[in-house]
Amino acid sequence: MEWVQEGSVTTPAGFRVGSARCGIKTTADQPDVALIVSDGPVAAAGTFTQNRFASPAVRWCRNRLPASEVRAIAVNAGIANACTGRQGERNVEETARLTAELVECRPEQVLVASTGQIGTQLPMARLREGIRKASAQLSASVEAGRAAERAIMTTDTHPKACAVRTTLNGAPFHVGGMAKGAGMISPHMATMLCFVTTDAAVPADMLQEALVAAVRPTLNRVTVDGDTSTNDTVLVLASGASGAAVGRDGSGLDTVAPALEAVLGQLAVMIASDGEGASKLLTVKVTGAASEQDAERAARAIAESPLVKCAVYGADPNWGRIVCALGYCGARLDTAATVVRIGDMAVFDASRTDGPGAGAEAMQQAEQHMQEPEVLIHADLGAGTAEATVLGCDLTEDYVRINAHYHT
Amino acid sequence: MEWVQEGSVTTPAGFRVGSARCGIKTTADQPDVALIVSDGPVAAAGTFTQNRFASPAVRWCRNRLPASEVRAIAVNAGIANACTGRQGERNVEETARLTAELVECRPEQVLVASTGQIGTQLPMARLREGIRKASAQLSASVEAGRAAERAIMTTDTHPKACAVRTTLNGAPFHVGGMAKGAGMISPHMATMLCFVTTDAAVPADMLQEALVAAVRPTLNRVTVDGDTSTNDTVLVLASGASGAAVGRDGSGLDTVAPALEAVLGQLAVMIASDGEGASKLLTVKVTGAASEQDAERAARAIAESPLVKCAVYGADPNWGRIVCALGYCGARLDTAATVVRIGDMAVFDASRTDGPGAGAEAMQQAEQHMQEPEVLIHADLGAGTAEATVLGCDLTEDYVRINAHYHT
Repeated sequence: MEWVQEGSVTTPAGFRVGSARCGIKTTADQPDVALIVSDGPVAAAGTFTQNRFASPAVRWCRNRLPASEVRAIAVNAGIANACTGRQGERNVEETARLTAELVECRPEQVLVASTGQIGTQLPMARLREGIRKASAQLSASVEAGRAAERAIMTTDTHPKACAVRTTLNGAPFHVGGMAKGAGMISPHMATMLCFVTTDAAVPADMLQEALVAAVRPTLNRVTVDGDTSTNDTVLVLASGASGAAVGRDGSGLDTVAPALEAVLGQLAVMIASDGEGASKLLTVKVTGAASEQDAERAARAIAESPLVKCAVYGADPNWGRIVCALGYCGARLDTAATVVRIGDMAVFDASRTDGPGAGAEAMQQAEQHMQEPEVLIHADLGAGTAEATVLGCDLTEDYVRINAHYHT
Repeated sequence: MEWVQEGSVTTPAGFRVGSARCGIKTTADQPDVALIVSDGPVAAAGTFTQNRFASPAVRWCRNRLPASEVRAIAVNAGIANACTGRQGERNVEETARLTAELVECRPEQVLVASTGQIGTQLPMARLREGIRKASAQLSASVEAGRAAERAIMTTDTHPKACAVRTTLNGAPFHVGGMAKGAGMISPHMATMLCFVTTDAAVPADMLQEALVAAVRPTLNRVTVDGDTSTNDTVLVLASGASGAAVGRDGSGLDTVAPALEAVLGQLAVMIASDGEGASKLLTVKVTGAASEQDAERAARAIAESPLVKCAVYGADPNWGRIVCALGYCGARLDTAATVVRIGDMAVFDASRTDGPGAGAEAMQQAEQHMQEPEVLIHADLGAGTAEATVLGCDLTEDYVRINAHYHT
């Protein structure tokens, strides 16, 4: 498996994308509508937010997937179309219907995703115009991919995309993806839209299974602020255009699945490091847990603690806040054997007879590590062999500024 | 029941307090040691953090309470004495022993509490000196109370104390309390030290029962940042010096308990509104829940959401973030009947047929309410009759500044 330079959703064969500005985003001159269109009917799978107030776009997709004959994904950024009542549902239906006309398929073959402000109705006249414009510009070029990546952004500071190339029984194939997400990002998927394509052929039910498995250790372990949005959506389309095919017996899935997980893992890192206001990527690894669930809970408690996040921002190797988070997270741990490392340095070791805290030299090295753009916190709970890693970021004044002033 | 002007722990008869500066706090010229001493042995009860890495001071108290013959509480601020190994335990024992010598009792009759940085050993030579100085200045005066309230502060911006006067079978008695707490404040008690005195006589086991009941709807429903500290401690001492007495059969407890809850409730408001960096007090009330637990969970999700907290700071009536928090909190709710109010204004009503969001005028009124120093968010889940209220505050750049730069 190798990474493709400038890889995105257009790297796999069989897909074209188009984007346009229709004026939904209030930031000037940014595109805000994107279409991903497959050359023919393709297998599709999806995973979605568990928020009870899920957007009608989420409900539209959830009701249809997995499916074997999907043709397009229509996306808008700037308005989430969540908490918009019956009108919001009608607007999703109309979006699907219009897109279907343009790409010549049935509305049921179109998936829809939205991100942005909650509670505002989509300006349908403008959106229709935007979708028409985007459909007139469908292309498989790198540039078209890059434009679509920008169209789905909200408070993201840069586009997020990648792709890998690998082979299945000698046939080369690709998995490519793009994502957006910066705030309202937490468990059970970031707000976050994530679109993945592959030119391998994968039966829809197996694609769904592989997606669920790949999302769990990647996108579901990103946390920016602990808020699970109303619109989180991950969609994957499999065209089969490469000739590489997973068999009905599942043969070859063990080649496609790791490629899918690699792409989602890379997008997860991109989302965490572009968290709203973030200046640093925070990786929290927990080992020695009694169960994977415990490991995840402990890692999440550390990565979501506002005090730890502020310490990461201030490059303060304040292990007290880390140990405190472990102490209240509810995971099983041995208070006499817990070890916390910052970078390589063991800053807290409960088994030390002369007190658990590290000496001045170790603390200095930990502080040096925390001045890097990527900070690693590693806690061993001394209670078992399970482990998990959660990705987050620091908490800065900019996070507050962005979210105190991004008005409805 | 009436509030006592300038009320504090010295308002009830039978208690004296002293404080001193010994240099543990790094902020210059602030007192950092306080003693609360009863004239004779008194009944005492306590509730404590559930953090697994609880300070040895917490363990010392927890092992002894409820108790009938307590004489003193020794408190220091600036160093939490948590995660300090065997030496930390010895330092608690020595603190109790020294205080016992000074007030002429057994070490077991002394309770100990600490707040401040985790992982640092107490400078015992200085602390001994501080306790001696504080014990030389014991007094029941209002000024002594005020000085003690300042001595227990860390990042608090002002002292927190209050007292009530009421009668039991015609005999007047008092309940007074002081508290500190600004950051690392969440479920199962804020870091937070809280000391309450009463001159009613209450058997220790009943005092414990009344304390646990009174903490639940008050201090346990304050959240500043979701971090539960290693040192949370609430202690109550009952001298009986007023002559008002709860009987062995519990008669009169129904008079003392509401007074205790009133004092803890008032201190909870003071703590929430003095949250680190906070510019506003946030009260989140949830009604129409299927259970009190669900109501609390929903209220806490709103009060702890960084996005909601930023919106409160920015006076942005962004109900989408509130509804989003309700959607992921896990509480049972009717998505077609949920109503969210900001102040008096219903900004979101899921049952409205023309879309759940309020019109421009209502939004303007909600925004006006949010510019006040005290903001009320009220959510009705439409799923039952249970309710709960959680107190919090907004999230500001100052919170980040304080916690990015308050180094270990």
